[in-house]
Amino acid sequence: MSAENQADKNGDMDGASARGKLIETASLIMREGDTIDISFSELSVRSGLNSALVKYYFGNKDGLLEAILERDMTKIVEDVGLLIAKDMPPEDKLRHHIGAVIDTYYKYPYIHRLTMRLIRDLPPEGARDIANKYLKPLSEAYGIFVGDGIKTGVFRDLDPDLFYSAVTGAADRFFTGKLVWKYCYGRDDFDEKMRDAYREQTVDLVMAGILAR
Amino acid sequence: MSAENQADKNGDMDGASARGKLIETASLIMREGDTIDISFSELSVRSGLNSALVKYYFGNKDGLLEAILERDMTKIVEDVGLLIAKDMPPEDKLRHHIGAVIDTYYKYPYIHRLTMRLIRDLPPEGARDIANKYLKPLSEAYGIFVGDGIKTGVFRDLDPDLFYSAVTGAADRFFTGKLVWKYCYGRDDFDEKMRDAYREQTVDLVMAGILAR
Repeated sequence: MSAENQADKNGDMDGASARGKLIETASLIMREGDTIDISFSELSVRSGLNSALVKYYFGNKDGLLEAILERDMTKIVEDVGLLIAKDMPPEDKLRHHIGAVIDTYYKYPYIHRLTMRLIRDLPPEGARDIANKYLKPLSEAYGIFVGDGIKTGVFRDLDPDLFYSAVTGAADRFFTGKLVWKYCYGRDDFDEKMRDAYREQTVDLVMAGILAR
Repeated sequence: MSAENQADKNGDMDGASARGKLIETASLIMREGDTIDISFSELSVRSGLNSALVKYYFGNKDGLLEAILERDMTKIVEDVGLLIAKDMPPEDKLRHHIGAVIDTYYKYPYIHRLTMRLIRDLPPEGARDIANKYLKPLSEAYGIFVGDGIKTGVFRDLDPDLFYSAVTGAADRFFTGKLVWKYCYGRDDFDEKMRDAYREQTVDLVMAGILAR
């Protein structure tokens, strides 16, 4: 049976939902294992779908990783676009945005590593394509709403690109450190309560850091 | 010829310096490639040393990675210990420390990924061992010098562990993003001037964020 037939005959699942299930399962494996190394065989066992389907839909591992990144990043870029368009003071936009970044890293703790892996391993055009689709819009958004706050004097004068780097790094680190939490502090409570505490403290820290006194 | 004989006969190089050269070369490969994936064969070619020596000194790849981490982290932990012991106001200690963290990530941009990889892949005792040797002392240091500043009222009241996570994440992110800089902004100037600009802005951001008003 060809992979295509297998896709059609896979229980009640049509092609689109089989593809979606593979992306969803791969995302869960990366989240649980705090890793971006996934094997086609584990993906096949966990999703209950034939591993030929993975090859059929995504070609190779990079194809699967790109599909996961697309699913996760498209929403982020859209949300930032909507935020920019809102009639809201820059400090409220920034506060809202930092909270959203922290929630995103909680949900997809692998997303930075995944982006870096693809940018590093794809041919230059592929790397540029990912930068253009997902990273440039975010960097430009910082230029706009941080720039607005600097112009009106509500923010201190600083470089929005360097600020972007500090904010996303601070937001990301905590959640990639799940195992640090476990082995350093003997804690397994890496849950939504912890996320909320981290969000609150980090948003306050960054806002106090950028607001003009 | 056995690996041990090869170690003795390797030009003028004695065992200790051949081992050191392998660590140094592996560190350079990881820094240049922005990766922690190194192959024994590349290491052998770049160092000019027989690949049997890698196995002889380090056993396997985890052994080599642990040796690199030990070289890089021992110095960091010592420096933080000296800083704590200094007779200096907490805000000066913190300012100095954040600058040092940024310099460290510039020098060893792989160090967080390397730590995480070992904590994830080693057996639980090995992971705990790494946490105890390198991460716990740093976390405890934050408890001390951030705690001191909170007690004296110079810092806002916050959780030092969550703060530790935000600071190291902010310091780290920029330098692991070398390729982002290249593909997003078409810039290849990832040099000491850039490091200095990032250090200055990020130290100011975090200090403004934590100082009580």
